[in-house]
Amino acid sequence: MTFRVTILGNSSATPTPERNPSAHVLNVHEQFFLVDCGEGTQQRLIRCGINPMKLQAVFLSHLHGDHVYGIFGLISTLGLMGKRTPLQIFAPKPFDEVLANHLRYFDSELSYEVQWCEVETRKHKLLFENKTLEVWSVPLRHRVPAAGFLFQEKVPALNLHKEAVERYGLGIAQCRAAKRGEDIVLESGVTIPNEELTYRPYRERSFAYLSDTLYSHRAAELVSGVDLMYHEATFADEDRALAKKTGHSTARQAAQVALTARAGRLLIGHFSSRYKDLHLLEAEVREIFSNSEAAIEGHSYEIPCMREHFR
Amino acid sequence: MTFRVTILGNSSATPTPERNPSAHVLNVHEQFFLVDCGEGTQQRLIRCGINPMKLQAVFLSHLHGDHVYGIFGLISTLGLMGKRTPLQIFAPKPFDEVLANHLRYFDSELSYEVQWCEVETRKHKLLFENKTLEVWSVPLRHRVPAAGFLFQEKVPALNLHKEAVERYGLGIAQCRAAKRGEDIVLESGVTIPNEELTYRPYRERSFAYLSDTLYSHRAAELVSGVDLMYHEATFADEDRALAKKTGHSTARQAAQVALTARAGRLLIGHFSSRYKDLHLLEAEVREIFSNSEAAIEGHSYEIPCMREHFR
Repeated sequence: MTFRVTILGNSSATPTPERNPSAHVLNVHEQFFLVDCGEGTQQRLIRCGINPMKLQAVFLSHLHGDHVYGIFGLISTLGLMGKRTPLQIFAPKPFDEVLANHLRYFDSELSYEVQWCEVETRKHKLLFENKTLEVWSVPLRHRVPAAGFLFQEKVPALNLHKEAVERYGLGIAQCRAAKRGEDIVLESGVTIPNEELTYRPYRERSFAYLSDTLYSHRAAELVSGVDLMYHEATFADEDRALAKKTGHSTARQAAQVALTARAGRLLIGHFSSRYKDLHLLEAEVREIFSNSEAAIEGHSYEIPCMREHFR
Repeated sequence: MTFRVTILGNSSATPTPERNPSAHVLNVHEQFFLVDCGEGTQQRLIRCGINPMKLQAVFLSHLHGDHVYGIFGLISTLGLMGKRTPLQIFAPKPFDEVLANHLRYFDSELSYEVQWCEVETRKHKLLFENKTLEVWSVPLRHRVPAAGFLFQEKVPALNLHKEAVERYGLGIAQCRAAKRGEDIVLESGVTIPNEELTYRPYRERSFAYLSDTLYSHRAAELVSGVDLMYHEATFADEDRALAKKTGHSTARQAAQVALTARAGRLLIGHFSSRYKDLHLLEAEVREIFSNSEAAIEGHSYEIPCMREHFR
């Protein structure tokens, strides 16, 4: 029951010799979701041992090159690898036009369909849903329309406590009712509360990706209680004027968002190339929000599966 | 008087964890020319210690993604670095349309001009010329219109032998005439042949880039006598049917082109990801053309400056 983010790139617009532009992979129960796709993403996927063919969907926060330029190579390579199933790409307008141009000039004979799904960047909206996961857009404040993403594991179905089933001698119909969350009335007339009979196999987890953006109180509220937050921290506090001018956050502002959201843990990233050493940014963020760290490329950050046998 | 090729990427279409898509830098007297620009080129330039701001021009052989996808990030980054002078990009049609779309969606406020210069892929034509260098297109045979490039150092101006000038007591007008290549008639009536008075400071050098292409006898003839040839060798001889089908060369065919051209030295590259070990390709090519090797990413290949004091 994996829930793990792998950082493929933590650099802002200008890459450095060591740092790559934005790209992240979220693994939810071995379903892989790509979040932003800076230049070189396809190769960094392979280097991190993630088969690009396993990607379920791609989420692009906004149409700045350092978040997008890797998508073209990825689309082409998936074709060369023989992909047949559609690839969904969630992105703001006019990604539909960008994609159409790409396909016309470079991939007119692609072996699979690329489906664009619009992200309306001003709305908090359900974008994607399957049995285990929901993905919501989170409006951000940047120089161009931008949205973050909230990945929310669904509440898992109730499991039965086998020993309780045996103890009370429950029949099939009673078991089904218990799994639906109902209390059970025994033949004796005694009512067994549902929580004696069932448990959640794990607590549902969540990941918020908030980049690129100015400080946003609304975003913090929309991801309230998130387990793991990735927030851009392009600049240090001393460069806050530059952050404001360019539509970015400082490390202190990232920490403030995590604090407001009562996040479990904060990762900062999207660092300006001016910071060779990230300890300054890490120190700033920890002053306000202690459970935080600078995201490291190639590293994975896991939210462990917490079982709830006894509610 | 540098004349040096640096390999930034030697992989064909599908990159491997170790190998990057096509990109090469030619340094001619500290003028830098980029030849093809696969994804990730801007970062590999920096890693090789080459400042992208120093690029004089870019040459793109054809519009397949593994030779082109890095140009978008490079254009954007040069803007962020504050470039003001125009950047010339030599590429076949419809790169003009690809570029216009890129600028519209991603770089509408670029700080400098990107100038597209058409490469007519069926013609052997002078594309670029300055004081020290000529660049010629070399028609290739690929699945899409493609041209290689011949970089030819110009014959340098004659230098005077100081000791000869002193020995014969030449005046300014006689020195000028000698530098123009003329023989000098002294007052005594004796004629001093020009080669006693002057020398070429170096022998002019050349580099041919031939990728992607099927075997081409015409290309070999057009680059006849080239000092250093880079020729694609996507496949080994045992996969020659696949090479033919995909419009590529085998290592043996690359060697044959070098042999026909009487090249000084051959580098092979653009390797299919199926070859983990390049020794097989290197062995094949050396059977036919001994002074050859598999191009290694990050390595530079120099053509030394040969002085011709005594012609």
